[in-house]
Amino acid sequence: MPIPAPNLYPAFNIVRLSHVELVVRDLEASRAFYVDTLGLQVTDQDADTLYLRALEERGHHCMVLKKGTEPQVNYLSYKVYAEEDLDRAHAWFTAKGLKAEWVERPYQGRTLRAHDLFDAPMEFYFQMDRLAPIHQQYKLYKGVKPLRIDHFNCFSPDVDASVAFYNEMGFRVTEYTEDNESGNLWAAWMHRKGGVHDIAFTNGRGPRLHHTAFWVPTPLNIIDLLDLMSTTGYLSNIERGPGRHGISNAFFLYILDPDGHRIEIYCSDYQTVDPDLEPIKWDLKDPQRQTLWGAPAPRSWFEHGSVFAEAAQRDSKMTAQPIIAP
Amino acid sequence: MPIPAPNLYPAFNIVRLSHVELVVRDLEASRAFYVDTLGLQVTDQDADTLYLRALEERGHHCMVLKKGTEPQVNYLSYKVYAEEDLDRAHAWFTAKGLKAEWVERPYQGRTLRAHDLFDAPMEFYFQMDRLAPIHQQYKLYKGVKPLRIDHFNCFSPDVDASVAFYNEMGFRVTEYTEDNESGNLWAAWMHRKGGVHDIAFTNGRGPRLHHTAFWVPTPLNIIDLLDLMSTTGYLSNIERGPGRHGISNAFFLYILDPDGHRIEIYCSDYQTVDPDLEPIKWDLKDPQRQTLWGAPAPRSWFEHGSVFAEAAQRDSKMTAQPIIAP
Amino acid sequence: MPIPAPNLYPAFNIVRLSHVELVVRDLEASRAFYVDTLGLQVTDQDADTLYLRALEERGHHCMVLKKGTEPQVNYLSYKVYAEEDLDRAHAWFTAKGLKAEWVERPYQGRTLRAHDLFDAPMEFYFQMDRLAPIHQQYKLYKGVKPLRIDHFNCFSPDVDASVAFYNEMGFRVTEYTEDNESGNLWAAWMHRKGGVHDIAFTNGRGPRLHHTAFWVPTPLNIIDLLDLMSTTGYLSNIERGPGRHGISNAFFLYILDPDGHRIEIYCSDYQTVDPDLEPIKWDLKDPQRQTLWGAPAPRSWFEHGSVFAEAAQRDSKMTAQPIIAP
Amino acid sequence: MPIPAPNLYPAFNIVRLSHVELVVRDLEASRAFYVDTLGLQVTDQDADTLYLRALEERGHHCMVLKKGTEPQVNYLSYKVYAEEDLDRAHAWFTAKGLKAEWVERPYQGRTLRAHDLFDAPMEFYFQMDRLAPIHQQYKLYKGVKPLRIDHFNCFSPDVDASVAFYNEMGFRVTEYTEDNESGNLWAAWMHRKGGVHDIAFTNGRGPRLHHTAFWVPTPLNIIDLLDLMSTTGYLSNIERGPGRHGISNAFFLYILDPDGHRIEIYCSDYQTVDPDLEPIKWDLKDPQRQTLWGAPAPRSWFEHGSVFAEAAQRDSKMTAQPIIAP
Ligand SMILES: [Ca+2]
Ligand SMILES: [Fe+2]
Ligand SMILES: [Fe+2]
Ligand SMILES: [Fe+2]
Ligand SMILES: [Fe+2]
Repeated sequence: MPIPAPNLYPAFNIVRLSHVELVVRDLEASRAFYVDTLGLQVTDQDADTLYLRALEERGHHCMVLKKGTEPQVNYLSYKVYAEEDLDRAHAWFTAKGLKAEWVERPYQGRTLRAHDLFDAPMEFYFQMDRLAPIHQQYKLYKGVKPLRIDHFNCFSPDVDASVAFYNEMGFRVTEYTEDNESGNLWAAWMHRKGGVHDIAFTNGRGPRLHHTAFWVPTPLNIIDLLDLMSTTGYLSNIERGPGRHGISNAFFLYILDPDGHRIEIYCSDYQTVDPDLEPIKWDLKDPQRQTLWGAPAPRSWFEHGSVFAEAAQRDSKMTAQPIIAP
Repeated sequence: MPIPAPNLYPAFNIVRLSHVELVVRDLEASRAFYVDTLGLQVTDQDADTLYLRALEERGHHCMVLKKGTEPQVNYLSYKVYAEEDLDRAHAWFTAKGLKAEWVERPYQGRTLRAHDLFDAPMEFYFQMDRLAPIHQQYKLYKGVKPLRIDHFNCFSPDVDASVAFYNEMGFRVTEYTEDNESGNLWAAWMHRKGGVHDIAFTNGRGPRLHHTAFWVPTPLNIIDLLDLMSTTGYLSNIERGPGRHGISNAFFLYILDPDGHRIEIYCSDYQTVDPDLEPIKWDLKDPQRQTLWGAPAPRSWFEHGSVFAEAAQRDSKMTAQPIIAP
Repeated sequence: MPIPAPNLYPAFNIVRLSHVELVVRDLEASRAFYVDTLGLQVTDQDADTLYLRALEERGHHCMVLKKGTEPQVNYLSYKVYAEEDLDRAHAWFTAKGLKAEWVERPYQGRTLRAHDLFDAPMEFYFQMDRLAPIHQQYKLYKGVKPLRIDHFNCFSPDVDASVAFYNEMGFRVTEYTEDNESGNLWAAWMHRKGGVHDIAFTNGRGPRLHHTAFWVPTPLNIIDLLDLMSTTGYLSNIERGPGRHGISNAFFLYILDPDGHRIEIYCSDYQTVDPDLEPIKWDLKDPQRQTLWGAPAPRSWFEHGSVFAEAAQRDSKMTAQPIIAP
Repeated sequence: MPIPAPNLYPAFNIVRLSHVELVVRDLEASRAFYVDTLGLQVTDQDADTLYLRALEERGHHCMVLKKGTEPQVNYLSYKVYAEEDLDRAHAWFTAKGLKAEWVERPYQGRTLRAHDLFDAPMEFYFQMDRLAPIHQQYKLYKGVKPLRIDHFNCFSPDVDASVAFYNEMGFRVTEYTEDNESGNLWAAWMHRKGGVHDIAFTNGRGPRLHHTAFWVPTPLNIIDLLDLMSTTGYLSNIERGPGRHGISNAFFLYILDPDGHRIEIYCSDYQTVDPDLEPIKWDLKDPQRQTLWGAPAPRSWFEHGSVFAEAAQRDSKMTAQPIIAP
């Protein structure tokens, strides 16, 4: 199925991905990982919750960690352009027969909780508490010097269907992988905010969150993180990389947090604001689409993901296996 | 005068700055500078014109160099979202009593040539020939490895007036310098595409173009360019830097082309897509607003700029002088 | 066997490794690899020979490529401190019953060709034609920007014996891997010039040359090379890396030339000039000794090497296998 | 006066510069600067003394800070190859009629305190307490990530005389500036350890210490330090840079500690171990010798230095003034 034409005038205006809420089992272990090692900043913490922001962000949080018994993803959250976009979003989901309800979230204004085509929970807000800038408080820069949340990447049991759904919401495809035999999409990268993606979908049992990515200034920050993690007890948390993706052209590293939630450290993709940007097509059989150079991804990278709250898993419609490290 | 509230629903939708057309006296000298030294790519050349693009761009040109007798700026060009935005732009300028006419430009669809409040020529198009991506043809990366055009910076005789005008077109202020005594704006940075700016205005005799900026991957590329220029006969073309701006937080270098057109090499500013992004205010008396660290700017940097075709110069309404290198 | 005490007053004074002469089958293919891709500079070329230097070197060559039918290593060459050191070297080898003879080499003064304990050919000279510095001709910097030859790494059938032999010549051990069960050395790194090594030995069928290493300014140069090689037809020449070694602490990449000669790109080891520098001991079972972080080395990296002219291969005395990528 | 031929067989063998002892007025202010900002590691501290080492060093200290009332330099210290070199040094200084006496220094074996031709105090030792390596404890890397002490730079009232004196001790000239009119040396860079210099001399009232330099991995570490210092109250401690020297080809930054002792942060010079390395001559009138690119040095950089204990100042024999920032 070919990728759809972009919907340049969607029913409601999503500005960008905003944050993820993850369930973790040990907040102190998570804090050691995200704060002391990666360098995210704590904006609030109580016995059950840790709020984090990256160094150039002014919204209160890009990640919320909730203490719980089983790791999972409570929701992916997006910022909309204006309050009326919330109401339009509510109408849009409701018209599709998808669950959409108003919820309360600390530090945020009105917030809509909805579910996507495969029941993955999405939340939308237009107003979040704004904090004073810290991007020039250089004494705070540590770890990998994370500047901002960049994107989500999810397993989808039907990438064509996911792309059609998110495309209707105004996400625009920048790159994609097609299975030439079936003509199906294997994977797609879709953006709102002008980079390669706010969210990507890859074929696999799902919905599941494959990873959340943070943007860093240069590849040297990633090398610094590798040096640090490999000498502070986090060697086995390094899953894949460093390397360069063919798709997105980004320099990357994948690491696993103490609960197995996967984090990508990412830099140097490109600007995609043109509405007529032509999506780049990759062949599923081209190993450079994932890895322009670098070691092949390990099996865990293809198989492991974080489950979503309230969303049943389905097997994917395609079973072709991409190249996996032997 | 305080900065105006952003116009979140402007009359027409500008996507981003696109390109500049400069008049130069010696196309071969310009080619040696822009292509052989900076590393821009030639997309077309004839006896009178050189078309250039940066490495991640797919539009045909981000800079047009025209052979002529006196250096000047023929126009600054912007890409709009859709063809109807051109007609809306035409109506908007016309309603203001400003000149706006349709012109023919090679490699572009319908193009509108208008003039801003101080007669600086602006052009708008929605469609430009798209070229195959070259961002992964790494053998082409040379010089400073310019990835994309980033912004224009102009002298304005009345920054408050310029900001009001561009704000109405939907440009949003990200940072600004205020003269605390008069309450006037001294300078402002305004964006459409989600970075710190597509265009900035600084108080001074104008309208004149202060510089055109290109975005590069890391500060090390700027250091590479300094090494190259200082050993290939371009030492005196290095005007200011390297350093870090307080405003924008960018790492920068200013250089002069063979005709005195100023080019900034720029990296590491921040994302500004949030419609509720609070502009950062700087005091005119704070020297770190221009130079977080680095040598003070030389006098030429404050005084010299490129004139616009068809636009008469006016003295600026303010005469306070910012800090200048002794 | 413990590592020997350093010989601080050796019989003759070796300053540093100097160059390697490799037999290659196609000089133009080699030139495309070493010159156009890596960025080494040609100092002389005729139908059969290509002489290369790196960017901060003033000696005429750090690598000599000879056209031939079978890839091999003709010799490893070292610079001695003064002419009398050549005569002392001649006496030292002769006294040990090892072959040592005077040979003629273009661009060099008197040159001694000798053989080490396992018949690997070594050459010594004190004077080589000196060329004008080019390290500030930045327009010449391309590819990985190789600054200087850094070290050789060889398979030895008996590392304890190799270390004893080279130690007597004044090479000093900086780091080593011991097999705790047998007490034998598995590998050792030995220097003359004040870095981690001029030569290293690893247990294996030998003598064979495992690799020749070049020193580059920063890890980003290695990333640039990976981007270039992976998009210019050299993807399969990338064998291992990037990563950081535990031993030496260097950031590294291993690549194979068109004849299978292995080249390491290397940076950021440390200074070792202190005569009382304590060698760092690593356990053969510690995988971080080879790879502080990064993908495991592939099988080829453990097995493949270049043979030496005039030197018969012997199996190694140890058969324990270090950790190999599955 | 031409530079002298190198003394390849000096009377005693100096391995490298080792450390400097500085008098400071406020140890806590010094600790905030050297430890919290630059990132040097504390190896011992009591009420009067702070011992520091850099990250790849294994000797106990590269800098000793002594609390006192007036900033000064107590001595520059050098490591010799073996104990007998101490006795040979004692004889050499004594034979010249220069003061040389045995002193006690914590954490060091026998230590010789001597005075150079202009009474600047030099100390020599062969043994210092060795500490466990920390270069792979990446959690300790902060600030500018200083790896090792690199060199001293001194004002000399007669550079020709200083060069002759240090040359006899075996320091070898790598680069120098000559005043073409008088034929006198204006400045010279001299090494023992295989880099561009362990010590340099520049014409000026002296003897005084112009600066002590630390070696860092890459220019990006220097940019990190600039970002940090300019936002933590140390903006006015930044004196000159960043830039690249013509001489040495190093990327540099000069900063002043709380007592006005100047520190250079330095990287990317070149290897100089060849005994026949040709010194590079620069013309005093060539501004690129000091600054290949970058802002001109401020007046303070030419005039200010730290005085030595027990050494009277003399005016320099030359009065020509090099290029100073206007
Ligand atoms: Ca003590
Ligand atoms: Fe990703
Ligand atoms: Fe700018
Ligand atoms: Fe090696
Ligand atoms: Fe220096």
